[in-house]
Amino acid sequence: MLFIGDSLCDLDMYYMSHFLAGDRFTILAADEVSLLVSSMEHGRASKESFADHVVSTSDYGIMEKLKASGKPDDAYLQVLAEFLRDRGIRRLGVPFRFPAGIYSHLSKEFEVILLDSPVSRWRAVKTKREIDAIATVQQACERAMHLAVEQISRSVPKGEYLYINDRLVTSEDIRALIEIALLERGCDAVDTIVAGGPDAVDPHARGAGPLPANEPIVIDIFPRSRVSRYFADMTRTVLRGEASPEVREMYDAVYDAQQTGLGAIRAGVLGKEVHHKVCQAFIDHGYPEIEGCGFTHSTGHGVGLNVHERPSLSEAGDMLVDGNVVTVEPGLYYPKIGGIRLEDLVVVTAKACENLTNFEKRLVV
Amino acid sequence: MLFIGDSLCDLDMYYMSHFLAGDRFTILAADEVSLLVSSMEHGRASKESFADHVVSTSDYGIMEKLKASGKPDDAYLQVLAEFLRDRGIRRLGVPFRFPAGIYSHLSKEFEVILLDSPVSRWRAVKTKREIDAIATVQQACERAMHLAVEQISRSVPKGEYLYINDRLVTSEDIRALIEIALLERGCDAVDTIVAGGPDAVDPHARGAGPLPANEPIVIDIFPRSRVSRYFADMTRTVLRGEASPEVREMYDAVYDAQQTGLGAIRAGVLGKEVHHKVCQAFIDHGYPEIEGCGFTHSTGHGVGLNVHERPSLSEAGDMLVDGNVVTVEPGLYYPKIGGIRLEDLVVVTAKACENLTNFEKRLVV
Repeated sequence: MLFIGDSLCDLDMYYMSHFLAGDRFTILAADEVSLLVSSMEHGRASKESFADHVVSTSDYGIMEKLKASGKPDDAYLQVLAEFLRDRGIRRLGVPFRFPAGIYSHLSKEFEVILLDSPVSRWRAVKTKREIDAIATVQQACERAMHLAVEQISRSVPKGEYLYINDRLVTSEDIRALIEIALLERGCDAVDTIVAGGPDAVDPHARGAGPLPANEPIVIDIFPRSRVSRYFADMTRTVLRGEASPEVREMYDAVYDAQQTGLGAIRAGVLGKEVHHKVCQAFIDHGYPEIEGCGFTHSTGHGVGLNVHERPSLSEAGDMLVDGNVVTVEPGLYYPKIGGIRLEDLVVVTAKACENLTNFEKRLVV
Repeated sequence: MLFIGDSLCDLDMYYMSHFLAGDRFTILAADEVSLLVSSMEHGRASKESFADHVVSTSDYGIMEKLKASGKPDDAYLQVLAEFLRDRGIRRLGVPFRFPAGIYSHLSKEFEVILLDSPVSRWRAVKTKREIDAIATVQQACERAMHLAVEQISRSVPKGEYLYINDRLVTSEDIRALIEIALLERGCDAVDTIVAGGPDAVDPHARGAGPLPANEPIVIDIFPRSRVSRYFADMTRTVLRGEASPEVREMYDAVYDAQQTGLGAIRAGVLGKEVHHKVCQAFIDHGYPEIEGCGFTHSTGHGVGLNVHERPSLSEAGDMLVDGNVVTVEPGLYYPKIGGIRLEDLVVVTAKACENLTNFEKRLVV
């Protein structure tokens, strides 16, 4: 099987090689794993990667080929073909996302077959070491959440907005607090959501400007460790001031739906079934999804080297297995009220799930 | 022309759409630009993107198709084909890096042609607005560099290492200083290099552990703005303590080679020629590249939405044009001494180049 790309973006490649690079390189996974990297990366790749062999494109005269053709892609294709011939390769599997330009070129000489890459399935089942890495990020995430919630709880509701020392508290303020706390623990926060009131109706909106008093504020943090490269993911919804009965009821429904989801998870269950139970819990509470309002997204997703990976707790949800790490994140969204979402991160086990999240769920702070 | 991917990784897609998304979406660039996104992203895409039309996959019943097939990729391919048919598309251009799985599937029904995407060529020529965005990041970068150099200049050389208040100064300390300073200006630092002594021989090594006294320390910072998404890039090499005559001579050679490179840049010159002049400057100074030592990399690269993009100042270097933004970063690397690199970021103009970097070059601090 052949992979070509950069492992910052193609996480299957990082998983296979444990070599992190923003520039394109090649992995050939046969009986042994070989990397083809630029001479600039040869030292680091030899040191950092899992691969059995690390080969430099300069061993195949990439500079001379480049001087001859003037085209980097052509020079790379020539080097690649020589690298494959040298290893006696005639047939190749490539993944769905393999670059079409290289696929098309290699197909002239080699038998190239598009394969459903097994790597993303392997990635879905975490080892103990991976679970520990995720749990470490989750701890950093909870510390950041704690600082954010504490800051909101210190604010004073006046009129429409929240204030600290007579200054408006904004999404940006809270986001900066979260990001710096995460950086201090070696984690990057990516697109942290701090969205209050109507801002939170779109579950992907990051939020901007002053935070509202008396309205739910969704805080969704999904940091990645710079060291291990693993993500964590959690969401809490808090409110400072007076919660309307409507919002309280919504919060309780989301809380119950999440409990339903958590209770339904164990190895052998379909991700789809968990999602259906959560949908049913919302219906039972009187919140059916109607015209794009209510519970508008899936129940959860796998978390690992990517923040969204297999398995899925949605209509596309396959069988859960021991070692999956998934979010359970029901939410309700209504244009005039805003959003409420609660998200925990759990490990699927044989009989149930182990919750990696250890942070209170309380609406009014 | 059809693009499929996520715009966090496929920057051509971000450039085309101005819609930043970590999940896969589709851009169809015909007379008008249409986006095909998930219903979750529809609101944000409509608000943020440049596109003339934003269409949701739920308009094509992706959920129903997913329920029927159970396979997300299959459901997506069905939706995509309907989306293209609806627009009367029969022939399609796709870029080199287009996903092979989708290329192969679409080729059954459509005439799909692999094209050298014009977008990366467009991206190489910056508008005034893009140059301003890059200059803003460069200013944040220089502030971070200032803090890093200042901290090193405050340290005390004792024996092999540098100390502040009797504590060892490490690569990690300086990197944290840089990263937090950048975050405060809304920029992410990516793999910042703070590498002293032999650590710096590999130009891509990030550096770790105590920083050496009396030896060059390479600081290479390439932050990206979270707001504009543009990068900047700069390198300085500093030394705290006593510099050996050997290191001083190397530093002077790198300085002169950089001046040669900067002096050679103007619209109409080949990137290759600039690189050759820099290589010649090193030879003139008595530093030929021999057996992987000396000046082992290219002279520079374009900087924009990616930290490495067109044009290249290397053997593959095409014609420079007005509005290119490139680094000029000669360096020398010897196993027993370490590395010395100086990197400025410049805009190519009709007659010369405009240096966006305004930071002193001084070895001993």
